[in-house]
Amino acid sequence: MELPNKWYNILPDLPKPLAPPRDPEGAEEEFSRIELLLKVLPQKLIWQENTVERWVPIPDEVLEVYKEIGRPTPLMRARRLEKLLDTPARIYFKYEGATPTGSHKINTAVPQAYYAKEEGVEGLTTETGAGQWGTALALAGAMYDMPVKVFMVRSSYHQKPYRRVIMRLYGADVTPSPSEETEFGKKVLRENPDHPGSLGIAMSEAIEYALKRNWRYGVGSVMNFVLLHQSIIGLEAMKQMEEIGEDPDVLVACIGGGSNFGGLVFPFLGQELQKTKDPKKKRRRYVGVTPSEVPKFSKGKYEYDFADAAGLLPQLKMHTLGHEFTPPPIYAGGLRYHGVAPAISLLYEEGWIEIMEYEQKECFEAGRLFAKAEGIVPAPETNHAIKAVIDLALEAKRKNEEMVILFNFSGHGLLDLGNYQSVLGL
Amino acid sequence: MELPNKWYNILPDLPKPLAPPRDPEGAEEEFSRIELLLKVLPQKLIWQENTVERWVPIPDEVLEVYKEIGRPTPLMRARRLEKLLDTPARIYFKYEGATPTGSHKINTAVPQAYYAKEEGVEGLTTETGAGQWGTALALAGAMYDMPVKVFMVRSSYHQKPYRRVIMRLYGADVTPSPSEETEFGKKVLRENPDHPGSLGIAMSEAIEYALKRNWRYGVGSVMNFVLLHQSIIGLEAMKQMEEIGEDPDVLVACIGGGSNFGGLVFPFLGQELQKTKDPKKKRRRYVGVTPSEVPKFSKGKYEYDFADAAGLLPQLKMHTLGHEFTPPPIYAGGLRYHGVAPAISLLYEEGWIEIMEYEQKECFEAGRLFAKAEGIVPAPETNHAIKAVIDLALEAKRKNEEMVILFNFSGHGLLDLGNYQSVLGL
Repeated sequence: MELPNKWYNILPDLPKPLAPPRDPEGAEEEFSRIELLLKVLPQKLIWQENTVERWVPIPDEVLEVYKEIGRPTPLMRARRLEKLLDTPARIYFKYEGATPTGSHKINTAVPQAYYAKEEGVEGLTTETGAGQWGTALALAGAMYDMPVKVFMVRSSYHQKPYRRVIMRLYGADVTPSPSEETEFGKKVLRENPDHPGSLGIAMSEAIEYALKRNWRYGVGSVMNFVLLHQSIIGLEAMKQMEEIGEDPDVLVACIGGGSNFGGLVFPFLGQELQKTKDPKKKRRRYVGVTPSEVPKFSKGKYEYDFADAAGLLPQLKMHTLGHEFTPPPIYAGGLRYHGVAPAISLLYEEGWIEIMEYEQKECFEAGRLFAKAEGIVPAPETNHAIKAVIDLALEAKRKNEEMVILFNFSGHGLLDLGNYQSVLGL
Repeated sequence: MELPNKWYNILPDLPKPLAPPRDPEGAEEEFSRIELLLKVLPQKLIWQENTVERWVPIPDEVLEVYKEIGRPTPLMRARRLEKLLDTPARIYFKYEGATPTGSHKINTAVPQAYYAKEEGVEGLTTETGAGQWGTALALAGAMYDMPVKVFMVRSSYHQKPYRRVIMRLYGADVTPSPSEETEFGKKVLRENPDHPGSLGIAMSEAIEYALKRNWRYGVGSVMNFVLLHQSIIGLEAMKQMEEIGEDPDVLVACIGGGSNFGGLVFPFLGQELQKTKDPKKKRRRYVGVTPSEVPKFSKGKYEYDFADAAGLLPQLKMHTLGHEFTPPPIYAGGLRYHGVAPAISLLYEEGWIEIMEYEQKECFEAGRLFAKAEGIVPAPETNHAIKAVIDLALEAKRKNEEMVILFNFSGHGLLDLGNYQSVLGL
């Protein structure tokens, strides 16, 4: 299959204009988050964040790397799972676990590294918790021959040594955060030399490190340009479904910051938005899945809140549990984020998206069923989507109706087997 | 690409007939290993072990499952590695890491489970050390809805919990060996309740367990029928190379029992054997790679020896370090076997195969280089092949000559990152 050569941008098709990012009240007395953002991101990404062009060309150099990392990823049918559930539903999944770093994160890491390189930037920083995003940026940096420095939350650094190893194999410099390498890190360590770290602290260190040299900062989710890059998933899936004469009735993806959900869903949802702005007329269902432990839709508010725990980035209008929300220590680290991408929030508010919530244990059980049926072990995040898919397939069975389900298999769980062991007692 | 629908059997093309398996001298006073083997294997495999038909049809039901596990696996070109080495060589690899269990082992696990099921067998047992083989048989059993019991060497059971978890996710019953579940295990535990176990003990337990019920025993390497099944790798690679107009000058694979080497190499080598029995006239080079720590070719003898450490299986004529050889604790567990498949031994003896030996550290360094260049982390076993490929590519550079290299990427190293950490200090 030919790779799509443009990303899809949902902004011009939204039923209402998106509320813009803003500085918090009183920012003039401290500093402008918007100006900070303009300094730490490549200029091209700032443009992509705001553009209302529906189609954004993918540079040839990025397409080339997309091919090298195995794009298009396979569209697979979970026939054995269907059989096990004895359902009339047909279950398809887009297998993002097939990329070398094992998740969809690489789809945006590659263009972020490319644009930075193109603008003469000399290196990239980011923060990472569970490690998926840091791994993706580490490889993207290696592919464009650019140094990458990852500030890894100290507790994760020690609890997840394998993630650290893979980033270092890719040549990245991985530093436990808080560190002595930034003023902010030093300050934290002076107050508490044994500080276990947090994503907010690691992000502050990464941004400070980038600002002090000709480096830029990599963003793993939430922002419009990240969802734009991830649209490659849905665009490929649309072509692949067409090739086999299928069209999904229901699309499913888990939601952390929203990049794997937006990536799969927006190209399909956008097709409908181009015909009608009335959600009652939509033909397909768009299902986002969140952990019950992080109920940002059912218990969160739709309001302006900081995009990050540290309050260094601008405020976004989104469904949020508050940027100081401390999520319970569920293993699906990628779903612990307090908010969700503004475009997804708006579409939920307007009735285009429905949300299903599940608890950790039932999600791991769903993952076990999937692994036994299909042989592929899903990441804890992906298990949430799978749990919803199973429930939808059983609903189709009860109603005895055909249903074509397409879900985003956002990542494999080979580095998360210890989590299965803990939750399922294996 | 259409999947090949026949496996290739090199037996009829060998320059000399293969010496048959035999019982040890004095076996009549104890028991016949050959008769034991006939009891614990499905009948169809016994037939495949001895047949001199060149092409053996792959059952439709096996082809179907081969497709489900992602066959044909991708043929990839390591362009970034070529660039990094600044070599005129073109480096291709057959990516067996793309299967759900992450290595080539599933290629033989599937037909072994299929034939057992077809013959009305009710379950499968095997032993596993590092866990690759146990994982593959666990999934194959799940796919044919047959229980699988894996006796896992007790020390590995505790040192490699992730492997245990993945086998259990596939529904297998994983028992640390020595166990209380067999007479042999009980006897060992009576002598030493803290016995760390060994592959020989685990194998004895697996065979005893199968013999006592209507179950059969799964074999991971060495035997002719295993290499037959693995020929799917080379047959696919041959088609894939033809499609892009290439023909390899050198084929490379690591050698443990020999199944990934035979799998890739035999279809190519067999083509030449059908034209000449004179190794001086061969067009391609066939390179096997072994650890310096297990020098079965350079320091081993070519003679009859037990196939297994416990002396339960028949003796085979092969290059061997002696079945009581204790390999150093290198991380490439799949390469620690004392002998090598008889057909590979014969071809080495006759001058068709050359052997390269490398030490653990330089192999992990090669794996690091590959991971950084290509994004894919190789298993410790595969690193041996990669080290040889790098040396061959540098040889091509020195001589400034074109060289088309094809190697077998036998498995990914995502469950072996701890080994990289230990060896490279990451």
